[in-house]
Amino acid sequence: MTDNLKLYTYWRSSCSWRVRIALNYKDIPFDPIPKTPEYKEKNPNGVVPSLLFPDGKLVIQSSAILELVDELYPQKPLLPKDPFKRATVRSICALIGSDIQPIQNLRVLNYVGETKQEWAAHFIDLGFQALEAMLIKHGGKYCFGDEITLADAYLVPQVYNAKRWGVDMSKYPVITAINDRLVELEPFKKSDPSVQVDAQ
Amino acid sequence: MTDNLKLYTYWRSSCSWRVRIALNYKDIPFDPIPKTPEYKEKNPNGVVPSLLFPDGKLVIQSSAILELVDELYPQKPLLPKDPFKRATVRSICALIGSDIQPIQNLRVLNYVGETKQEWAAHFIDLGFQALEAMLIKHGGKYCFGDEITLADAYLVPQVYNAKRWGVDMSKYPVITAINDRLVELEPFKKSDPSVQVDAQ
Repeated sequence: MTDNLKLYTYWRSSCSWRVRIALNYKDIPFDPIPKTPEYKEKNPNGVVPSLLFPDGKLVIQSSAILELVDELYPQKPLLPKDPFKRATVRSICALIGSDIQPIQNLRVLNYVGETKQEWAAHFIDLGFQALEAMLIKHGGKYCFGDEITLADAYLVPQVYNAKRWGVDMSKYPVITAINDRLVELEPFKKSDPSVQVDAQ
Repeated sequence: MTDNLKLYTYWRSSCSWRVRIALNYKDIPFDPIPKTPEYKEKNPNGVVPSLLFPDGKLVIQSSAILELVDELYPQKPLLPKDPFKRATVRSICALIGSDIQPIQNLRVLNYVGETKQEWAAHFIDLGFQALEAMLIKHGGKYCFGDEITLADAYLVPQVYNAKRWGVDMSKYPVITAINDRLVELEPFKKSDPSVQVDAQ
């Protein structure tokens, strides 16, 4: 055991992946704790991620964790200082984190049943039309201009899901170009599901 | 026309309602602009709310708007100063704003079709089990202790939706008690769908 932060995580969970990206980008050491059946006792919502601090404080919900991490560890900030720019970054995060990802996560898809492939592709497609427009307006090398922000931590897992569910990414050249640049960066490589301790 | 903020809104939209609550709670004057067919041109995501500032800046996504409003108008803060307390408030917001509301909004329910009542009740119920546990732990008079926070702006519209879709609220006494206290407060009354200019 170490005094590191502990991240309750699951290799393929988009929301865990976002937090891994932020922690790795800021060079914050953490111990990943893969999701187990006992996990639900610690988190009333029963979902990863949650972040456990050495003093026992446990924080759930990726958006709340990411804001907290950026507040507590100001090195390499993931939100701009200007309030309106912050708002734009947060709106890109919310477009992915509220309008796209929750509707195509496994909990929902398992309930949808046999039409889940069509369901996931439909809602990711709808969301990506809006996202592509946002990134044309606000993006640069990355989602918001040329600096890494929280929005980039949301983008990469969502593009992975889009590909997994067969979305035609050729319709989204700006999303694709930004994602291609991000996945080459070291903190993003370290956060990829395929290299997690619980990867299958 | 005034120099007020303009809120693109729809009377029954939960996300618009959250923003109305925050603006009314902080006594920030705003002109509501009900959603129209032309609206989609201003907002690539085609959904309300969006907040237009007198200098032409437009911010979308209720979570981003709410954070911005709390940053620009620090009177009657809607987030605690302590980072961990802020994180807890944000986690309650995210539980509603990412795990519950997006899965039972009209866009999704229209796609679900004839089983939409069962669908909505199922996912609200799942979310409310987690929310009740959170509010038992963190709530007081309101969602987080005895002060109004952003979490309260999320709660009231979500309880309205739960009742609309036939969720048995007797299973959630803490949610119910907090909601009952909130709806008696003036800023919450002014924000209710039934008193909006576009109410049907």
